[in-house]
Amino acid sequence: MNMEAKTPYQGAIVGHEHYFALRVYIEDTDFGGVVYHSNYLRFLERARSDMLRLLGIHQRAAFEAGEGVYAVAEVRIKYRKPARLDDELVIVSRLEEIRGASCVINQKILRGEELLTDATVTAAFLGAEGRPKRQPAEWVKKFGNFKTGGV
Amino acid sequence: MNMEAKTPYQGAIVGHEHYFALRVYIEDTDFGGVVYHSNYLRFLERARSDMLRLLGIHQRAAFEAGEGVYAVAEVRIKYRKPARLDDELVIVSRLEEIRGASCVINQKILRGEELLTDATVTAAFLGAEGRPKRQPAEWVKKFGNFKTGGV
Amino acid sequence: MNMEAKTPYQGAIVGHEHYFALRVYIEDTDFGGVVYHSNYLRFLERARSDMLRLLGIHQRAAFEAGEGVYAVAEVRIKYRKPARLDDELVIVSRLEEIRGASCVINQKILRGEELLTDATVTAAFLGAEGRPKRQPAEWVKKFGNFKTGGV
Amino acid sequence: MNMEAKTPYQGAIVGHEHYFALRVYIEDTDFGGVVYHSNYLRFLERARSDMLRLLGIHQRAAFEAGEGVYAVAEVRIKYRKPARLDDELVIVSRLEEIRGASCVINQKILRGEELLTDATVTAAFLGAEGRPKRQPAEWVKKFGNFKTGGV
Repeated sequence: MNMEAKTPYQGAIVGHEHYFALRVYIEDTDFGGVVYHSNYLRFLERARSDMLRLLGIHQRAAFEAGEGVYAVAEVRIKYRKPARLDDELVIVSRLEEIRGASCVINQKILRGEELLTDATVTAAFLGAEGRPKRQPAEWVKKFGNFKTGGV
Repeated sequence: MNMEAKTPYQGAIVGHEHYFALRVYIEDTDFGGVVYHSNYLRFLERARSDMLRLLGIHQRAAFEAGEGVYAVAEVRIKYRKPARLDDELVIVSRLEEIRGASCVINQKILRGEELLTDATVTAAFLGAEGRPKRQPAEWVKKFGNFKTGGV
Repeated sequence: MNMEAKTPYQGAIVGHEHYFALRVYIEDTDFGGVVYHSNYLRFLERARSDMLRLLGIHQRAAFEAGEGVYAVAEVRIKYRKPARLDDELVIVSRLEEIRGASCVINQKILRGEELLTDATVTAAFLGAEGRPKRQPAEWVKKFGNFKTGGV
Repeated sequence: MNMEAKTPYQGAIVGHEHYFALRVYIEDTDFGGVVYHSNYLRFLERARSDMLRLLGIHQRAAFEAGEGVYAVAEVRIKYRKPARLDDELVIVSRLEEIRGASCVINQKILRGEELLTDATVTAAFLGAEGRPKRQPAEWVKKFGNFKTGGV
């Protein structure tokens, strides 16, 4: 059997961007025939999760070690055009800003050349007790390299 | 049997605000023990739907008559504190602005006196072909009355 | 302000049944205009959660105390008729069987007199390490009283 | 850029089985640290959708042409072991039975060699008015070829 069938998709990092393709399934749609608005936030998080993994940032391990976890602190999202069942979408994610205890990520959802959705997500790093905490220095370095396209 | 058991909850309009209470179920939480960030958008939409119904604005009828439907055009949401399983939340929704083809709604999610989440949602009215369309005049009037607390 | 606006709905126990009403929101529907099939499982779990709470069984407290948690072990669900946006549904839950480490619950979803969905759910009690564990004796007693209509 | 980054994953057909790999994201988990039970039904439907597409059965086109649509009529699912964040899962789908107006599909979710979930799903073909309808003859033929491993 080919390996593609047994390995989860995770997109790819190209320069200072992460590309993540997905198809719209029935679960994503609503009675209007389009993707329900909150589901785009799920799509964006899948892309961010895989982007982190490809950068060598392992959230589950950090969480289980009690070091901390990223939490979404703010989202600004503009829905320009709707996506529909079976549409092939690509999410393009870029690191916009790296702060001490958070980072800002821009994520665009495209269908071919069309921009459907444009979002800016602020993720805060939280310690075990749920308070903002400095991101691990090693992660900040990885983010820095990614931002400048040198991963 | 008491009627409460057979009638869906829909919150209440009090002056120029709509109050909508809900409890956090397991489906809403994630591995961090808190409500997953996109689920708040589902909560907010439940509150807006019931607010519209209580104002006498029937979305399903308008959609089925081919008149149009509201679509979320933009969301700005700040997650200040996390909600947890079994938490009793209240969503307070206010009409911030009424435009020709859209309206802007502010929605706060509270746990007791604590502000957990603060969101501003722009809903655009779309015609059958998916283009922005003027909201029905009767609805704009209802929104106007609600905004000034005169429902 | 009336209290209804500030208190989450939780249905009611009537004899040996729990009644839980809900309205179908946009989030629940799919492109076919009906409730997406997996969302009924979310509805059923909301009803079971509130049934347990009304019986005096507090899952979050038991989980946080490391005593254990219920996990769904098996679901058999028949979708007879679809529910649509704005439909008012009632979930009727009955305890079918109480075993040492699990219980079997029958849950029907009705729209007025129409039976839409019929499900049998087996919930297993799991200890902290994820293994089947005897349910707390006090809970078994409460289930027993409920089953025979004597809550 | 490599193409992998721009093309959605869709699994692969191998003999009489469809393989579909996925990774568990935060959206899939609940406060217990495991995948929430109804989310497995979403996973299964993604796999079935891609299996149909790879078989040359285009649901959206049939729906838009008013020919009909598949609806889940019954699910029997056993949850044997939980999946956790970041787990790599594989869904193996087989056609168990082809009837006039429905088909029965067996779907297993595996993590490596471990069987986590075992489900049997009956999908009914429904005409525009929501009544059972014979599946298109061409689709039945495709299913037949798939069942006997001759796609």
